[in-house]
Amino acid sequence: MDRLLGTVQPGASQPAPGASSAGVEEGRTARKRRAILNAAIEVFLQHGYLGASMDEVAARAAVSKQTVYKQFEDKEHLFAEIILGTTVQVVDELARAYANTLEEATDVRQAFRDLARRFLDNLTQPDVLQLRRLVLAEADRFPDISAAWFEGAFHRSLVLLGESMTRLADRGMLRDLPDPTLAAYQFAGLVMYKPMNQVMFAGTRARPAADELEHIADRAAEVFLAAYGRP
Amino acid sequence: MDRLLGTVQPGASQPAPGASSAGVEEGRTARKRRAILNAAIEVFLQHGYLGASMDEVAARAAVSKQTVYKQFEDKEHLFAEIILGTTVQVVDELARAYANTLEEATDVRQAFRDLARRFLDNLTQPDVLQLRRLVLAEADRFPDISAAWFEGAFHRSLVLLGESMTRLADRGMLRDLPDPTLAAYQFAGLVMYKPMNQVMFAGTRARPAADELEHIADRAAEVFLAAYGRP
Repeated sequence: MDRLLGTVQPGASQPAPGASSAGVEEGRTARKRRAILNAAIEVFLQHGYLGASMDEVAARAAVSKQTVYKQFEDKEHLFAEIILGTTVQVVDELARAYANTLEEATDVRQAFRDLARRFLDNLTQPDVLQLRRLVLAEADRFPDISAAWFEGAFHRSLVLLGESMTRLADRGMLRDLPDPTLAAYQFAGLVMYKPMNQVMFAGTRARPAADELEHIADRAAEVFLAAYGRP
Repeated sequence: MDRLLGTVQPGASQPAPGASSAGVEEGRTARKRRAILNAAIEVFLQHGYLGASMDEVAARAAVSKQTVYKQFEDKEHLFAEIILGTTVQVVDELARAYANTLEEATDVRQAFRDLARRFLDNLTQPDVLQLRRLVLAEADRFPDISAAWFEGAFHRSLVLLGESMTRLADRGMLRDLPDPTLAAYQFAGLVMYKPMNQVMFAGTRARPAADELEHIADRAAEVFLAAYGRP
Protein backbone atom coordinates (compact mmCIF):
# COMPACT_ATOMS: atom_id res chain seq x y z
CA MET A 1 0.00 0.00 0.00
CA ASP A 2 2.93 2.39 0.61
CA ARG A 3 3.86 2.04 -3.03
CA LEU A 4 0.30 2.81 -4.00
CA LEU A 5 0.10 5.87 -1.76
CA GLY A 6 3.36 7.10 -3.20
CA THR A 7 2.21 6.94 -6.80
CA VAL A 8 -1.24 8.57 -6.82
CA GLN A 9 -1.20 11.94 -8.53
CA PRO A 10 -3.63 14.82 -8.70
CA GLY A 11 -5.95 14.44 -11.73
CA ALA A 12 -4.70 16.11 -14.93
CA SER A 13 -6.13 19.58 -15.39
CA GLN A 14 -8.06 20.88 -18.40
CA PRO A 15 -5.93 22.23 -21.31
CA ALA A 16 -5.68 25.95 -21.90
CA PRO A 17 -7.85 27.37 -24.72
CA GLY A 18 -6.05 27.18 -28.06
CA ALA A 19 -3.95 24.20 -27.01
CA SER A 20 -2.06 22.14 -29.62
CA SER A 21 -3.48 18.85 -30.96
CA ALA A 22 -1.39 17.06 -28.34
CA GLY A 23 -3.11 19.38 -25.89
CA VAL A 24 -6.55 18.46 -27.28
CA GLU A 25 -5.69 14.77 -26.85
CA GLU A 26 -4.56 15.52 -23.31
CA GLY A 27 -7.85 17.36 -22.74
CA ARG A 28 -9.83 14.37 -23.95
CA THR A 29 -7.87 12.10 -21.60
CA ALA A 30 -8.45 14.49 -18.72
CA ARG A 31 -12.19 14.56 -19.42
CA LYS A 32 -12.28 10.76 -19.49
CA ARG A 33 -10.36 10.58 -16.21
CA ARG A 34 -12.80 13.03 -14.61
CA ALA A 35 -15.80 11.03 -15.93
CA ILE A 36 -14.31 7.79 -14.59
CA LEU A 37 -13.61 9.35 -11.17
CA ASN A 38 -17.15 10.75 -10.89
CA ALA A 39 -18.65 7.42 -11.92
CA ALA A 40 -16.41 5.55 -9.49
CA ILE A 41 -17.45 7.74 -6.53
CA GLU A 42 -21.09 6.90 -7.29
CA VAL A 43 -20.42 3.20 -7.68
CA PHE A 44 -18.25 2.91 -4.53
CA LEU A 45 -20.83 4.80 -2.50
CA GLN A 46 -23.69 2.72 -3.77
CA HIS A 47 -22.15 -0.75 -3.46
CA GLY A 48 -19.21 -0.29 -1.09
CA TYR A 49 -15.68 -1.16 -2.14
CA LEU A 50 -16.23 -4.92 -2.34
CA GLY A 51 -19.48 -4.69 -4.29
CA ALA A 52 -18.19 -2.11 -6.78
CA SER A 53 -17.34 -3.46 -10.25
CA MET A 54 -15.05 -1.90 -12.83
CA ASP A 55 -17.64 -2.86 -15.48
CA GLU A 56 -20.21 -0.61 -13.87
CA VAL A 57 -17.70 2.24 -13.49
CA ALA A 58 -16.84 1.99 -17.20
CA ALA A 59 -20.51 1.87 -18.20
CA ARG A 60 -21.47 4.90 -16.13
CA ALA A 61 -18.46 6.87 -17.39
CA ALA A 62 -19.31 5.83 -20.97
CA VAL A 63 -15.76 4.58 -21.61
CA SER A 64 -14.36 1.11 -22.28
CA LYS A 65 -13.18 -1.06 -19.43
CA GLN A 66 -9.69 -1.01 -20.97
CA THR A 67 -9.66 2.78 -20.61
CA VAL A 68 -10.48 2.47 -16.92
CA TYR A 69 -7.64 -0.02 -16.37
CA LYS A 70 -5.21 2.01 -18.53
CA GLN A 71 -5.91 5.15 -16.49
CA PHE A 72 -6.10 3.63 -12.99
CA GLU A 73 -4.44 0.18 -13.10
CA ASP A 74 -6.93 -1.58 -10.78
CA LYS A 75 -9.82 -1.06 -8.35
CA GLU A 76 -7.56 -0.32 -5.39
CA HIS A 77 -5.64 2.38 -7.29
CA LEU A 78 -8.91 3.90 -8.48
CA PHE A 79 -10.17 4.03 -4.89
CA ALA A 80 -6.91 5.62 -3.66
CA GLU A 81 -7.05 8.19 -6.47
CA ILE A 82 -10.58 9.23 -5.46
CA ILE A 83 -9.62 9.68 -1.82
CA LEU A 84 -6.16 11.16 -2.20
CA GLY A 85 -5.82 12.43 -5.76
CA THR A 86 -6.94 16.02 -5.33
CA THR A 87 -6.56 16.29 -1.57
CA VAL A 88 -3.44 18.46 -1.36
CA GLN A 89 -4.71 20.89 -3.97
CA VAL A 90 -8.13 21.28 -2.31
CA VAL A 91 -6.63 21.74 1.15
CA ASP A 92 -4.22 24.40 -0.12
CA GLU A 93 -7.09 26.35 -1.68
CA LEU A 94 -9.23 26.10 1.45
CA ALA A 95 -6.36 27.06 3.74
CA ARG A 96 -5.57 30.09 1.57
CA ALA A 97 -9.22 31.19 1.72
CA TYR A 98 -9.31 30.72 5.52
CA ALA A 99 -6.01 32.59 5.93
CA ASN A 100 -7.31 35.51 3.86
CA THR A 101 -10.46 35.72 5.94
CA LEU A 102 -8.45 35.90 9.15
CA GLU A 103 -5.37 37.79 8.12
CA GLU A 104 -7.13 40.63 6.34
CA ALA A 105 -9.36 41.12 9.37
CA THR A 106 -9.72 44.47 11.06
CA ASP A 107 -12.64 43.26 13.23
CA VAL A 108 -11.59 39.97 14.78
CA ARG A 109 -15.12 39.00 15.88
CA GLN A 110 -16.49 39.52 12.40
CA ALA A 111 -13.55 37.59 10.93
CA PHE A 112 -14.26 34.52 13.06
CA ARG A 113 -17.96 34.75 12.26
CA ASP A 114 -17.12 34.86 8.55
CA LEU A 115 -14.70 31.97 8.92
CA ALA A 116 -17.34 29.90 10.70
CA ARG A 117 -19.81 30.58 7.86
CA ARG A 118 -17.21 29.51 5.30
CA PHE A 119 -16.60 26.27 7.22
CA LEU A 120 -20.30 25.53 7.27
CA ASP A 121 -20.75 26.32 3.58
CA ASN A 122 -17.78 24.29 2.40
CA LEU A 123 -18.06 21.27 4.62
CA THR A 124 -21.75 20.53 4.27
CA GLN A 125 -21.59 20.37 0.45
CA PRO A 126 -22.92 17.02 -0.79
CA ASP A 127 -19.67 16.10 -2.61
CA VAL A 128 -17.58 16.74 0.52
CA LEU A 129 -19.96 14.63 2.60
CA GLN A 130 -19.92 11.86 -0.01
CA LEU A 131 -16.14 11.69 0.09
CA ARG A 132 -16.13 11.57 3.89
CA ARG A 133 -18.68 8.80 3.95
CA LEU A 134 -16.57 6.81 1.52
CA VAL A 135 -13.38 7.23 3.59
CA LEU A 136 -15.24 6.30 6.78
CA ALA A 137 -16.98 3.29 5.30
CA GLU A 138 -13.70 1.76 4.08
CA ALA A 139 -11.42 3.00 6.88
CA ASP A 140 -10.98 -0.51 8.28
CA ARG A 141 -10.33 -2.07 4.87
CA PHE A 142 -7.77 0.57 3.81
CA PRO A 143 -6.33 2.08 6.99
CA ASP A 144 -3.33 3.47 5.10
CA ILE A 145 -5.49 5.37 2.62
CA SER A 146 -7.82 6.78 5.27
CA ALA A 147 -4.90 7.66 7.55
CA ALA A 148 -3.15 9.42 4.63
CA TRP A 149 -6.38 11.33 3.89
CA PHE A 150 -6.74 12.32 7.54
CA GLU A 151 -3.13 13.55 7.76
CA GLY A 152 -2.96 15.19 4.33
CA ALA A 153 -6.40 16.80 4.29
CA PHE A 154 -8.28 17.00 7.57
CA HIS A 155 -5.40 17.44 10.01
CA ARG A 156 -3.28 19.52 7.64
CA SER A 157 -6.07 22.06 7.08
CA LEU A 158 -6.26 22.59 10.86
CA VAL A 159 -2.49 22.91 11.26
CA LEU A 160 -2.61 25.64 8.58
CA LEU A 161 -5.55 27.33 10.33
CA GLY A 162 -3.57 27.27 13.59
CA GLU A 163 -0.70 29.03 11.80
CA SER A 164 -3.08 31.76 10.62
CA MET A 165 -4.33 32.15 14.18
CA THR A 166 -0.75 32.52 15.42
CA ARG A 167 -0.15 35.35 12.92
CA LEU A 168 -3.29 37.03 14.23
CA ALA A 169 -1.95 36.70 17.77
CA ASP A 170 1.37 38.19 16.60
CA ARG A 171 -0.60 41.21 15.38
CA GLY A 172 -2.11 41.56 18.86
CA MET A 173 -5.61 40.50 17.77
CA LEU A 174 -5.71 37.28 19.82
CA ARG A 175 -4.05 36.18 23.05
CA ASP A 176 -0.89 34.13 22.67
CA LEU A 177 -1.83 30.58 21.69
CA PRO A 178 0.06 27.90 23.63
CA ASP A 179 -1.21 25.17 21.24
CA PRO A 180 -2.40 26.75 17.96
CA THR A 181 -3.36 23.47 16.26
CA LEU A 182 -5.55 22.52 19.21
CA ALA A 183 -7.10 26.01 19.16
CA ALA A 184 -7.92 25.46 15.47
CA TYR A 185 -9.55 22.11 16.26
CA GLN A 186 -11.51 23.73 19.10
CA PHE A 187 -12.84 26.42 16.79
CA ALA A 188 -13.76 23.82 14.16
CA GLY A 189 -15.44 21.70 16.85
CA LEU A 190 -17.47 24.66 18.13
CA VAL A 191 -18.66 25.34 14.59
CA MET A 192 -18.99 21.89 13.07
CA TYR A 193 -19.86 19.36 15.77
CA LYS A 194 -23.62 19.77 15.59
CA PRO A 195 -24.22 20.30 11.84
CA MET A 196 -21.56 17.83 10.68
CA ASN A 197 -22.86 15.01 12.86
CA GLN A 198 -26.41 15.84 11.89
CA VAL A 199 -25.77 15.64 8.14
CA MET A 200 -23.38 12.69 8.39
CA PHE A 201 -25.68 10.55 10.50
CA ALA A 202 -29.14 11.73 9.65
CA GLY A 203 -28.45 12.39 5.96
CA THR A 204 -27.99 15.42 3.74
CA ARG A 205 -31.69 16.23 4.07
CA ALA A 206 -31.01 16.93 7.78
CA ARG A 207 -28.84 19.99 7.01
CA PRO A 208 -29.93 22.65 9.55
CA ALA A 209 -31.76 25.71 8.20
CA ALA A 210 -29.69 28.73 7.13
CA ASP A 211 -30.66 30.83 10.17
CA GLU A 212 -29.70 28.02 12.54
CA LEU A 213 -26.32 27.72 10.80
CA GLU A 214 -25.75 31.46 11.24
CA HIS A 215 -26.67 31.22 14.90
CA ILE A 216 -24.21 28.34 15.35
CA ALA A 217 -21.48 30.29 13.53
CA ASP A 218 -21.96 33.43 15.62
CA ARG A 219 -22.08 31.54 18.92
CA ALA A 220 -18.93 29.60 17.98
CA ALA A 221 -17.09 32.90 17.43
CA GLU A 222 -18.33 34.20 20.81
CA VAL A 223 -17.14 31.17 22.74
CA PHE A 224 -13.80 31.02 20.95
CA LEU A 225 -13.07 34.69 21.56
CA ALA A 226 -14.16 34.50 25.20
CA ALA A 227 -11.17 32.17 25.62
CA TYR A 228 -8.70 33.44 23.02
CA GLY A 229 -9.69 37.06 22.32
CA ARG A 230 -7.87 40.01 23.81
CA PRO A 231 -9.60 41.24 26.99
CA MET B 1 -39.95 1.56 7.67
CA ASP B 2 -42.05 3.35 10.29
CA ARG B 3 -43.55 0.05 11.25
CA LEU B 4 -40.10 -1.44 11.54
CA LEU B 5 -38.81 1.43 13.67
CA GLY B 6 -41.86 1.11 15.88
CA THR B 7 -41.36 -2.56 16.61
CA VAL B 8 -37.70 -2.90 17.55
CA GLN B 9 -37.24 -3.65 21.23
CA PRO B 10 -34.26 -3.59 23.56
CA GLY B 11 -32.65 -7.06 23.79
CA ALA B 12 -34.04 -9.31 26.52
CA SER B 13 -31.97 -9.25 29.70
CA GLN B 14 -30.36 -12.22 31.49
CA PRO B 15 -32.58 -14.12 33.95
CA ALA B 16 -32.11 -13.71 37.70
CA PRO B 17 -30.22 -16.52 39.49
CA GLY B 18 -32.60 -19.28 40.60
CA ALA B 19 -35.08 -18.50 37.83
CA SER B 20 -37.82 -21.00 36.96
CA SER B 21 -37.44 -23.39 34.01
CA ALA B 22 -39.40 -20.88 31.91
CA GLY B 23 -36.81 -18.37 33.10
CA VAL B 24 -33.95 -20.68 32.08
CA GLU B 25 -35.52 -21.02 28.62
CA GLU B 26 -35.83 -17.24 28.46
CA GLY B 27 -32.17 -16.93 29.47
CA ARG B 28 -31.12 -19.30 26.69
CA THR B 29 -33.12 -17.26 24.19
CA ALA B 30 -31.54 -14.06 25.45
CA ARG B 31 -28.05 -15.55 25.11
CA LYS B 32 -28.84 -16.63 21.56
CA ARG B 33 -30.16 -13.16 20.71
CA ARG B 34 -27.00 -11.58 22.11
CA ALA B 35 -24.80 -14.02 20.14
CA ILE B 36 -26.74 -13.27 16.95
CA LEU B 37 -26.47 -9.50 17.47
CA ASN B 38 -22.73 -9.67 18.11
CA ALA B 39 -22.20 -11.87 15.06
CA ALA B 40 -24.38 -9.58 12.92
CA ILE B 41 -22.38 -6.47 13.88
CA GLU B 42 -19.20 -8.23 12.74
CA VAL B 43 -20.75 -9.44 9.50
CA PHE B 44 -22.37 -6.07 8.62
CA LEU B 45 -19.13 -4.23 9.33
CA GLN B 46 -17.07 -6.64 7.29
CA HIS B 47 -19.29 -6.94 4.22
CA GLY B 48 -21.60 -3.92 4.39
CA TYR B 49 -25.36 -4.35 4.49
CA LEU B 50 -25.72 -5.66 0.95
CA GLY B 51 -22.87 -8.16 1.21
CA ALA B 52 -23.93 -9.52 4.62
CA SER B 53 -25.63 -12.92 4.58
CA MET B 54 -27.92 -14.39 7.22
CA ASP B 55 -26.10 -17.73 6.69
CA GLU B 56 -22.85 -16.20 7.88
CA VAL B 57 -24.55 -14.51 10.84
CA ALA B 58 -26.06 -17.86 11.90
CA ALA B 59 -22.73 -19.67 11.48
CA ARG B 60 -20.76 -17.13 13.54
CA ALA B 61 -23.42 -17.10 16.26
CA ALA B 62 -23.46 -20.94 16.26
CA VAL B 63 -27.24 -21.05 15.87
CA SER B 64 -29.49 -22.29 13.08
CA LYS B 65 -30.64 -19.94 10.35
CA GLN B 66 -34.24 -20.59 11.46
CA THR B 67 -33.35 -19.22 14.89
CA VAL B 68 -32.02 -16.03 13.32
CA TYR B 69 -35.22 -15.53 11.30
CA LYS B 70 -37.42 -16.46 14.27
CA GLN B 71 -35.71 -13.86 16.46
CA PHE B 72 -35.28 -11.04 13.92
CA GLU B 73 -37.69 -11.67 11.01
CA ASP B 74 -35.30 -10.55 8.21
CA LYS B 75 -32.01 -8.80 7.48
CA GLU B 76 -33.50 -5.31 7.65
CA HIS B 77 -35.05 -5.93 11.08
CA LEU B 78 -31.77 -7.37 12.32
CA PHE B 79 -29.93 -4.26 11.11
CA ALA B 80 -32.48 -1.95 12.77
CA GLU B 81 -32.23 -3.92 16.02
CA ILE B 82 -28.44 -3.49 16.08
CA ILE B 83 -28.63 0.26 15.54
CA LEU B 84 -31.69 1.09 17.62
CA GLY B 85 -32.33 -1.83 19.96
CA THR B 86 -30.35 -0.72 22.99
CA THR B 87 -30.03 2.96 22.15
CA VAL B 88 -32.51 4.44 24.63
CA GLN B 89 -31.16 2.35 27.49
CA VAL B 90 -27.52 3.26 26.77
CA VAL B 91 -28.27 6.96 26.39
CA ASP B 92 -30.19 7.03 29.68
CA GLU B 93 -27.26 5.44 31.49
CA LEU B 94 -24.75 7.83 29.94
CA ALA B 95 -26.90 10.88 30.61
CA ARG B 96 -27.33 9.85 34.25
CA ALA B 97 -23.56 9.47 34.63
CA TYR B 98 -22.95 12.86 33.00
CA ALA B 99 -25.62 14.50 35.16
CA ASN B 100 -24.06 13.07 38.32
CA THR B 101 -20.64 14.36 37.35
CA LEU B 102 -22.00 17.87 36.85
CA GLU B 103 -24.70 18.11 39.45
CA GLU B 104 -22.66 16.80 42.37
CA ALA B 105 -19.93 19.28 41.52
CA THR B 106 -18.53 21.68 44.08
CA ASP B 107 -15.64 22.74 41.79
CA VAL B 108 -17.13 23.54 38.40
CA ARG B 109 -13.78 23.51 36.56
CA GLN B 110 -12.93 20.08 37.89
CA ALA B 111 -16.45 18.87 37.04
CA PHE B 112 -16.09 19.85 33.39
CA ARG B 113 -12.62 18.34 33.23
CA ASP B 114 -14.01 15.09 34.63
CA LEU B 115 -16.93 15.20 32.22
CA ALA B 116 -14.57 15.70 29.28
CA ARG B 117 -12.51 12.68 30.38
CA ARG B 118 -15.69 10.58 30.62
CA PHE B 119 -16.68 11.63 27.09
CA LEU B 120 -13.29 10.66 25.76
CA ASP B 121 -13.29 7.32 27.56
CA ASN B 122 -16.79 6.32 26.53
CA LEU B 123 -16.82 7.52 22.96
CA THR B 124 -13.52 6.16 21.78
CA GLN B 125 -14.34 2.57 22.83
CA PRO B 126 -14.03 0.19 19.87
CA ASP B 127 -17.66 -1.01 20.12
CA VAL B 128 -19.01 2.56 20.10
CA LEU B 129 -16.85 3.39 17.07
CA GLN B 130 -17.97 0.21 15.31
CA LEU B 131 -21.62 1.12 15.74
CA ARG B 132 -21.02 4.65 14.46
CA ARG B 133 -19.18 3.36 11.42
CA LEU B 134 -22.07 1.04 10.66
CA VAL B 135 -24.70 3.80 10.94
CA LEU B 136 -22.59 6.11 8.77
CA ALA B 137 -21.85 3.52 6.13
CA GLU B 138 -25.54 2.71 5.62
CA ALA B 139 -26.98 6.18 6.28
CA ASP B 140 -27.95 6.65 2.63
CA ARG B 141 -29.51 3.19 2.35
CA PHE B 142 -31.55 3.49 5.57
CA PRO B 143 -32.07 7.19 6.22
CA ASP B 144 -34.95 6.47 8.62
CA ILE B 145 -32.85 4.18 10.81
CA SER B 146 -29.85 6.52 10.90
CA ALA B 147 -32.08 9.55 11.52
CA ALA B 148 -33.83 7.68 14.34
CA TRP B 149 -30.45 6.78 15.83
CA PHE B 150 -29.25 10.38 15.58
CA GLU B 151 -32.39 11.73 17.26
CA GLY B 152 -32.77 9.01 19.88
CA ALA B 153 -29.11 8.62 20.84
CA PHE B 154 -26.71 11.32 19.68
CA HIS B 155 -28.96 14.37 19.81
CA ARG B 156 -30.92 13.20 22.85
CA SER B 157 -27.77 12.74 24.93
CA LEU B 158 -26.83 16.36 24.24
CA VAL B 159 -30.31 17.68 25.03
CA LEU B 160 -30.02 15.88 28.40
CA LEU B 161 -26.54 17.31 28.95
CA GLY B 162 -27.90 20.81 28.21
CA GLU B 163 -30.56 20.25 30.89
CA SER B 164 -27.86 19.33 33.42
CA MET B 165 -25.98 22.50 32.48
CA THR B 166 -29.12 24.56 33.04
CA ARG B 167 -29.48 23.10 36.55
CA LEU B 168 -25.85 24.08 37.19
CA ALA B 169 -26.64 27.62 36.00
CA ASP B 170 -29.70 27.67 38.31
CA ARG B 171 -27.33 26.89 41.19
CA GLY B 172 -25.24 29.90 40.18
CA MET B 173 -22.28 27.83 38.97
CA LEU B 174 -22.57 28.86 35.29
CA ARG B 175 -23.88 31.96 33.55
CA ASP B 176 -27.44 31.76 32.26
CA LEU B 177 -27.49 29.68 29.07
CA PRO B 178 -29.59 31.17 26.29
CA ASP B 179 -29.37 27.92 24.26
CA PRO B 180 -28.43 25.02 26.55
CA THR B 181 -28.53 22.32 23.86
CA LEU B 182 -26.13 24.32 21.67
CA ALA B 183 -23.88 24.88 24.71
CA ALA B 184 -23.83 21.10 25.21
CA TYR B 185 -22.88 20.55 21.55
CA GLN B 186 -20.18 23.21 21.86
CA PHE B 187 -18.67 21.48 24.88
CA ALA B 188 -18.81 18.11 23.10
CA GLY B 189 -17.22 19.69 20.01
CA LEU B 190 -14.40 21.22 22.04
CA VAL B 191 -13.68 17.82 23.60
CA MET B 192 -14.39 15.39 20.77
CA TYR B 193 -13.68 17.05 17.44
CA LYS B 194 -10.01 16.14 17.25
CA PRO B 195 -9.93 12.65 18.80
CA MET B 196 -13.24 11.49 17.30
CA ASN B 197 -12.27 12.47 13.77
CA GLN B 198 -8.83 10.99 14.25
CA VAL B 199 -10.12 7.57 15.34
CA MET B 200 -13.05 7.56 12.90
CA PHE B 201 -10.96 8.42 9.84
CA ALA B 202 -7.51 7.16 10.66
CA GLY B 203 -8.64 4.07 12.53
CA THR B 204 -8.79 2.89 16.13
CA ARG B 205 -4.98 2.57 16.17
CA ALA B 206 -4.86 6.39 15.78
CA ARG B 207 -6.36 6.99 19.26
CA PRO B 208 -4.30 9.83 20.77
CA ALA B 209 -2.07 9.00 23.74
CA ALA B 210 -3.56 9.30 27.24
CA ASP B 211 -1.64 12.47 28.10
CA GLU B 212 -2.81 14.16 24.89
CA LEU B 213 -6.41 13.20 25.71
CA GLU B 214 -6.05 14.75 29.18
CA HIS B 215 -4.62 17.92 27.68
CA ILE B 216 -7.56 18.10 25.23
CA ALA B 217 -10.05 17.54 28.09
CA ASP B 218 -8.52 20.24 30.29
CA ARG B 219 -8.27 22.79 27.49
CA ALA B 220 -11.90 22.09 26.48
CA ALA B 221 -13.03 22.88 30.04
CA GLU B 222 -10.98 26.13 30.01
CA VAL B 223 -12.49 27.39 26.76
CA PHE B 224 -16.03 26.41 27.73
CA LEU B 225 -15.79 28.14 31.11
CA ALA B 226 -14.21 31.25 29.62
CA ALA B 227 -17.52 31.68 27.81
CA TYR B 228 -20.04 30.15 30.22
CA GLY B 229 -18.38 30.25 33.66
CA ARG B 230 -19.24 32.84 36.28
CA PRO B 231 -16.77 35.77 36.13
